[in-house]
Amino acid sequence: MGTLNSSDYERILFDVVGNALPDNETIPVIVCGMAGSRQGWAEAPYVEVPCCTPGLSKATHVAGTNPRLNVWILPGIKQTMPEDVMRGEETQIAGYLADHALFSGLFCLPGTHSKWVTVNEGRVASFSTFMTGELFGLLSQQSVLRHSIEVGELRTETFCQTVRTVLDNPSEQAGGLFRIRAQTLLKMQHPLDAASQLSGLLIGSELAALNLGSYPDQKIVILGADKLATAYKLALGVLGRSSEQVPVETVTLRGLQLAYQSLKENLQ
Amino acid sequence: MGTLNSSDYERILFDVVGNALPDNETIPVIVCGMAGSRQGWAEAPYVEVPCCTPGLSKATHVAGTNPRLNVWILPGIKQTMPEDVMRGEETQIAGYLADHALFSGLFCLPGTHSKWVTVNEGRVASFSTFMTGELFGLLSQQSVLRHSIEVGELRTETFCQTVRTVLDNPSEQAGGLFRIRAQTLLKMQHPLDAASQLSGLLIGSELAALNLGSYPDQKIVILGADKLATAYKLALGVLGRSSEQVPVETVTLRGLQLAYQSLKENLQ
Repeated sequence: MGTLNSSDYERILFDVVGNALPDNETIPVIVCGMAGSRQGWAEAPYVEVPCCTPGLSKATHVAGTNPRLNVWILPGIKQTMPEDVMRGEETQIAGYLADHALFSGLFCLPGTHSKWVTVNEGRVASFSTFMTGELFGLLSQQSVLRHSIEVGELRTETFCQTVRTVLDNPSEQAGGLFRIRAQTLLKMQHPLDAASQLSGLLIGSELAALNLGSYPDQKIVILGADKLATAYKLALGVLGRSSEQVPVETVTLRGLQLAYQSLKENLQ
Repeated sequence: MGTLNSSDYERILFDVVGNALPDNETIPVIVCGMAGSRQGWAEAPYVEVPCCTPGLSKATHVAGTNPRLNVWILPGIKQTMPEDVMRGEETQIAGYLADHALFSGLFCLPGTHSKWVTVNEGRVASFSTFMTGELFGLLSQQSVLRHSIEVGELRTETFCQTVRTVLDNPSEQAGGLFRIRAQTLLKMQHPLDAASQLSGLLIGSELAALNLGSYPDQKIVILGADKLATAYKLALGVLGRSSEQVPVETVTLRGLQLAYQSLKENLQ
């Protein structure tokens, strides 16, 4: 996205999928995520919490030039107090809710900007975003910590111990970062332990901010099944909390299919 | 330093200062800071806390090839519990202590990696390093926040309010970062306010980690008089703490002069 103008999206999408499309037909395209941002393909509005996952009803129709594509961009969700926004995650949550319509609980969506979303009886109540993934990337690749860190298999004992330390004392997040470097210099800490410590500091800080202890019975669903998502599951375990993991591809496709279903019904 | 080999330092220093040196004389050169690190000019040892500022007595003599330079690198200080290291700041503190031999209090040294150093009757007792300056640079220039932030004059009201928020709730550090972006998107927050908020989050997190409230009578000296140092003074003011500011160039030169004085006495 960083290198595209809004007018580039249609052509680039067609370059990628054009060969797979039937000839002489207009194909509906449902888009979610950052393509709907101000710097994206076309700005899609936000729906405000508390709300149902918005789906197609408030989607933005893109007036394109290619007659074989009929593009709709799904809305994001915003929150004004405190300020927060999401684009894409609402569609993943919609995918999960498709089979759990009256679900109440907390979704964890790991990623560059991880999100925690509280849902009450199928409606999005509130959410918080953390820059954890982006911070991990910047600190491990571009800060002085890059000399200490090797990103690879998570060392779970180091990770969980660091999560515990931050939960006991949230101000450790600030104080613990440079210590990773000092531990390399003074006791040759293994670079995989250094990476696991950084990950534990950042994910532990998320958990500390969420105040999960106040909602001991809330169900937690992690949308993701990769290494990062599994680290979140481990960190929740340090708090004594169990969580369900669902592959994010499954719920993303399910959410997009739901929107396509509405579109088909509208077009009939 | 990132682009130099240890063998480059002598030549490069001589390129810079050679013309200003008297002919046919060997000039003593006193160095402090990262030139003494493993990746620097020559590794200088660390002295361990609690300790006096080490000065020349434990300096590393560099066996150079240029007969006109006689180079000594001053030691750094290390702490093993929790792990931390400094190189250069010990010389600045020595410069301050030159005129306040039995000083007790807390030094704040703002910078890429800011340090807070507790000194008891002229001896360094303990210290903590924070990656605040480096984090501010990475987040304001390379993260998604770069679209929201313009670095310029500090907006002191926004800054102090954010410091206060983090002091009241240290977990705000994690939760507050992405909010800076959301506030741009949802209410067009001014980019100077966004920068001041980021600065307040990071500096507030340092103060929260230091637990200054437990030492209400401790004197605080900020070694620095630039904009960044003044932001630390403001933040301390939010806690109701006064602080003295001393220009860092003055104490750095004073610390180096002290070491030169010892060298002259040794050479006589």
